[in-house]
Amino acid sequence: MSSRIPVAVVGATGLAGQQFLASLAAHPMLEVKKLAASARSAGKKLGAALRDDKGSSRWLCSEALSPEHAELLVEDSANMTSDGIKLVFSAVEADVAREIEPKFAKDIAVISTASAYRYENDVPVFLPGVNWDHAALIDVQRKNRGWKGFISPGPNCTTVGLAMTLAPLHAAFGVGRVIMTSMQALSGAGRSPGVSAMDILDNIVPYIPKEEEKVEKETLKILGKVSGAGITPADLKVSCTCTRVNVLEGHTESVFAELKRKASLDEVKAVWRDFGAELQKLKLPSAPKQLVSLNEDPFRPQVRLDRDAEGGMSTVVGRLREDPVLGGVKYMLVSHNTRMGAAKGAILVAEYLATKGYI
Amino acid sequence: MSSRIPVAVVGATGLAGQQFLASLAAHPMLEVKKLAASARSAGKKLGAALRDDKGSSRWLCSEALSPEHAELLVEDSANMTSDGIKLVFSAVEADVAREIEPKFAKDIAVISTASAYRYENDVPVFLPGVNWDHAALIDVQRKNRGWKGFISPGPNCTTVGLAMTLAPLHAAFGVGRVIMTSMQALSGAGRSPGVSAMDILDNIVPYIPKEEEKVEKETLKILGKVSGAGITPADLKVSCTCTRVNVLEGHTESVFAELKRKASLDEVKAVWRDFGAELQKLKLPSAPKQLVSLNEDPFRPQVRLDRDAEGGMSTVVGRLREDPVLGGVKYMLVSHNTRMGAAKGAILVAEYLATKGYI
Amino acid sequence: MSSRIPVAVVGATGLAGQQFLASLAAHPMLEVKKLAASARSAGKKLGAALRDDKGSSRWLCSEALSPEHAELLVEDSANMTSDGIKLVFSAVEADVAREIEPKFAKDIAVISTASAYRYENDVPVFLPGVNWDHAALIDVQRKNRGWKGFISPGPNCTTVGLAMTLAPLHAAFGVGRVIMTSMQALSGAGRSPGVSAMDILDNIVPYIPKEEEKVEKETLKILGKVSGAGITPADLKVSCTCTRVNVLEGHTESVFAELKRKASLDEVKAVWRDFGAELQKLKLPSAPKQLVSLNEDPFRPQVRLDRDAEGGMSTVVGRLREDPVLGGVKYMLVSHNTRMGAAKGAILVAEYLATKGYI
Amino acid sequence: MSSRIPVAVVGATGLAGQQFLASLAAHPMLEVKKLAASARSAGKKLGAALRDDKGSSRWLCSEALSPEHAELLVEDSANMTSDGIKLVFSAVEADVAREIEPKFAKDIAVISTASAYRYENDVPVFLPGVNWDHAALIDVQRKNRGWKGFISPGPNCTTVGLAMTLAPLHAAFGVGRVIMTSMQALSGAGRSPGVSAMDILDNIVPYIPKEEEKVEKETLKILGKVSGAGITPADLKVSCTCTRVNVLEGHTESVFAELKRKASLDEVKAVWRDFGAELQKLKLPSAPKQLVSLNEDPFRPQVRLDRDAEGGMSTVVGRLREDPVLGGVKYMLVSHNTRMGAAKGAILVAEYLATKGYI
Repeated sequence: MSSRIPVAVVGATGLAGQQFLASLAAHPMLEVKKLAASARSAGKKLGAALRDDKGSSRWLCSEALSPEHAELLVEDSANMTSDGIKLVFSAVEADVAREIEPKFAKDIAVISTASAYRYENDVPVFLPGVNWDHAALIDVQRKNRGWKGFISPGPNCTTVGLAMTLAPLHAAFGVGRVIMTSMQALSGAGRSPGVSAMDILDNIVPYIPKEEEKVEKETLKILGKVSGAGITPADLKVSCTCTRVNVLEGHTESVFAELKRKASLDEVKAVWRDFGAELQKLKLPSAPKQLVSLNEDPFRPQVRLDRDAEGGMSTVVGRLREDPVLGGVKYMLVSHNTRMGAAKGAILVAEYLATKGYI
Repeated sequence: MSSRIPVAVVGATGLAGQQFLASLAAHPMLEVKKLAASARSAGKKLGAALRDDKGSSRWLCSEALSPEHAELLVEDSANMTSDGIKLVFSAVEADVAREIEPKFAKDIAVISTASAYRYENDVPVFLPGVNWDHAALIDVQRKNRGWKGFISPGPNCTTVGLAMTLAPLHAAFGVGRVIMTSMQALSGAGRSPGVSAMDILDNIVPYIPKEEEKVEKETLKILGKVSGAGITPADLKVSCTCTRVNVLEGHTESVFAELKRKASLDEVKAVWRDFGAELQKLKLPSAPKQLVSLNEDPFRPQVRLDRDAEGGMSTVVGRLREDPVLGGVKYMLVSHNTRMGAAKGAILVAEYLATKGYI
Repeated sequence: MSSRIPVAVVGATGLAGQQFLASLAAHPMLEVKKLAASARSAGKKLGAALRDDKGSSRWLCSEALSPEHAELLVEDSANMTSDGIKLVFSAVEADVAREIEPKFAKDIAVISTASAYRYENDVPVFLPGVNWDHAALIDVQRKNRGWKGFISPGPNCTTVGLAMTLAPLHAAFGVGRVIMTSMQALSGAGRSPGVSAMDILDNIVPYIPKEEEKVEKETLKILGKVSGAGITPADLKVSCTCTRVNVLEGHTESVFAELKRKASLDEVKAVWRDFGAELQKLKLPSAPKQLVSLNEDPFRPQVRLDRDAEGGMSTVVGRLREDPVLGGVKYMLVSHNTRMGAAKGAILVAEYLATKGYI
Repeated sequence: MSSRIPVAVVGATGLAGQQFLASLAAHPMLEVKKLAASARSAGKKLGAALRDDKGSSRWLCSEALSPEHAELLVEDSANMTSDGIKLVFSAVEADVAREIEPKFAKDIAVISTASAYRYENDVPVFLPGVNWDHAALIDVQRKNRGWKGFISPGPNCTTVGLAMTLAPLHAAFGVGRVIMTSMQALSGAGRSPGVSAMDILDNIVPYIPKEEEKVEKETLKILGKVSGAGITPADLKVSCTCTRVNVLEGHTESVFAELKRKASLDEVKAVWRDFGAELQKLKLPSAPKQLVSLNEDPFRPQVRLDRDAEGGMSTVVGRLREDPVLGGVKYMLVSHNTRMGAAKGAILVAEYLATKGYI
């Protein structure tokens, strides 16, 4: 494993950072060599930094913290250099990302879960298997900004399942208008403090600030086409309502989509089943067999039962029906917001870009 | 109170029947004189019938069982007569309703929460304050069937909030296409056994058999116009997805609605605020001040906080925004499925029909 | 109502403070004249202070905020004086309480939910109906400290149900060793941020820092006897384990108690039933009819069904059985942690002390 | 794998039966050759038998149903013979078990999760690693009953964690009086219908019929000594209260235990750490490395985080403290009720008995 690519995780002590570490333990292509977090944790080994003053662990993933990672010294995000690493996974909040990601991008690749640079013209937002051709923007970005590296942010976790299921429909039939209502998991709100238990028990919170705008905008960018030095957004219209429900992990979405060319339900199913065959051929370690998994049980997908499909890397769809209102289809989907929707999705992007020589 | 109308509750031991009893305790216009349930409970006083063999009570409402009701003898639904009563509240399953409701309707009024007769041409489906004019069908029904009484079933609980919020928009602006995703409470599934806790903890069940068809059909009937001997359905198109979430009471719905005449958000709010003024004038005991209550807090409506608005008789709306996809508005609503959505809504219908001389 | 006693609520914007306000709206003996909170809220009307920058309300009680309270100006706790009031209800954290409560106590009565002064020798910890005779300490405290007022902190919310159910047993039979395991509600942890939903969904947290020590100590003080200038703790031994469960309100406790004099289960029930008759005679507005309510249904008490017994002022007990291990009884109890266990319990103490001339 | 022992699972379509199948897929020593269930499922392949009339799967385990098992034909439990198998895993209800288990035991081994024969004198109740010496009863049982096989029921799932943690303490220090309060998972109540979601949301059910008596009795039998033709129960006294909480899997128990010989907390920890070394040596496929895992984080064990320790085969203990009331220790434990507490525990017993020549 000596030839693994050396990487850093920035924001390593937070929930998103921990999820990067959990997914990078024993990774065949990538090796965590450096960690960074806020000044408060700097100077401690990660294991110690994750222990609070009562001796309780703040490690939140179901996988154990790897002993190698526990022994790494946490650096201050503001001061960490890119010496000795070729890639930074950035799991910090948007305002911090705006400051520090360009510093790393001068020299090396930055793959981020933060939204800070997501909407800039020369910045690709990769959704694995959907828009690898957007990699052309990396060269544009390098040239525009005089960087040797680049910034590649992932989509909002709620965009992921929607864009993943729409992508093959759009390619095959053309998608027009889309209406979506999400029921999102607690983990999407982080955990410092995240959602208060008193607010969500026996309840639904009908508003997640800024979420709807993100989904409505990102879906068009992801499904868009490279055109000159930027992306021409796809010619869709998305309207959505995003809610929070008392579910630990995994976002559920109720989708209504217009299809410009009439398609039978069987055609739709076939398109989903075939989607991702290209990705399979690349043999990337984190790629699922099915980007979209169809479950024909009328009571599925259920988020607790389906979020972990293919290690949380496959979007599970079901309840496919014709929709007479928009003229197309309606369906339900479950997508794992902290796997394909965050850290593991970012790692899969890294695997792709490394394979293609961008890292 | 000697002049109260004598009524019976059939299906008195079930969840819906209990809710009738809870809402009828000390009612100023209606007095429960007879109870019926399955043969298993017949011959016992209600208090005893609701105690299981371990001495545990099967009374499920938050209000206490009234001592008067506890002392009433439970009759067998199959044998109970209409002697001494003028109205039956029917809270039985659809298949039982189909058998027994016509027997009572020969002589007296039947107001039901069962779906058995909901879709027949000469049967009105009242939504309080929305379609009182459908009472004209009662005469049609009596004539058609040779009955002195009539059957009046209430809408499905999920239809209630949707049709209640669409009705004033339809009157003011014309509603065209509607897309709705519901997140429905456990109590809607009853409790024998109802939803299994293992199925819903940390989960969402994306399918409720027959629910979507009911909502799509009933909304058009409720908003339709009396025409000759029947109802001409409203010229809307409704498409919906109904899901079950881990919430005790109260249905939450995410609605997207086309408005045929363009309306500002302020106009929409005004229409909702003014809606129900007519109902107020009737001074019916169970009528809410606002059929639709607007909450402008961006994080509302929340089902646990808003389901009990005006005793569960007001539908709370919020998150009103323009919808560019359908060309109209999108909003969230919370409606109490077992109050206005079932027993208390049925009682309000009874109050109206009694006031108007139908009972 | 012009003769109502003027009071202030300090810590008015927090969860505990809000609960004081909810319980004091239209109170027949007490009138809220002043409010105080942290400097951040000072200078605003309460209604405005409870609205966040998105326009969302931070009022958390199921009762509406009273219009009178909403219009009161919030003062800075550090600067508020006792002018114009005769009583302060203090709902601040222990460290703040330690600073500010003595300032008020120089002149007027302070009734507090904070633990700051709970363990001092000359400070009574009243449990309504259990230890009114501890009021003798008020004179001791005034003399010791040269105050015209006094500080009277309530017990920890978990102590309340335990001490309330043990008190009559101790008086009648003598209680010896006690073992208790609690399953405590979310609201006991407050809400800034309180318990994180991700930590408690499908989970139990087995540790609540400092809680067990408080219960073990306070129970002995509450059941103790005034002796000279202090309290001689009761001759019990309490050992407990306190856990947090995913319940909104209401603490559940599993109790095993040695009885020094052998008592039949019927004798125990009789003692509980008779308990509180004295309190009844005082006709205090917030006093429950039964301090302890026995429910003989084998599946009760259930916290969601029983926490609101008598407005949350009665401790509900059930599952009474003989305990062969300690030689006594075992039982379950449900006690409302934010009613009798906090604000409403404190108000009942105020009613008593006012009646007796201490305020 | 041709030399694997052929086994049957009876009650294969229920929750417990499915858990057997999930744990037996690709088992190195045991191979499922036959399945049985009620007459309703008989004659269908298991895959088909688990599909309801809407096409929805009734398979409830997180592991997928193995293709081999799905193809097995389900027989009627009442008619299945022991031809071709050497062992029956019985996962039926107690009343059915009482009928059918002896029929199989005439010829082959029966390892059961049912309580039917648990309290008979010549029937061992194995707890892995704790009482293998009770295997002597198998010979007694064969002789008494004229059987070639035998019946070996496992303990109640709530007994498992308690007896597992007490066993090494009893061996080292002598355990006297024990008080335990459990907070048990939903899965312990099965799922047809199991616990109703409406009964447990925001709630605790304080009573599980017959559970406390089972724990109080079984613990003594499991920790007892073989003596002549039966077991002399251990000289302990156990008193407990068993409750149901809204947790999917895993029982949490709060234990207070008298130690007859005074032991420091470090001595107790050492005893737990060393426990199970003997079991390790046998290299049984399902045996955990630690029968009891100590977690010194003060906020552990937490049931959602700890129930899957070592595949649900290790009991996790924490919060160890001295208990002054009983004179010993108090602690919390989490034990997986459907792994070591049911099917996987039974399989581990089978592995042991096979190794020792009893099967």
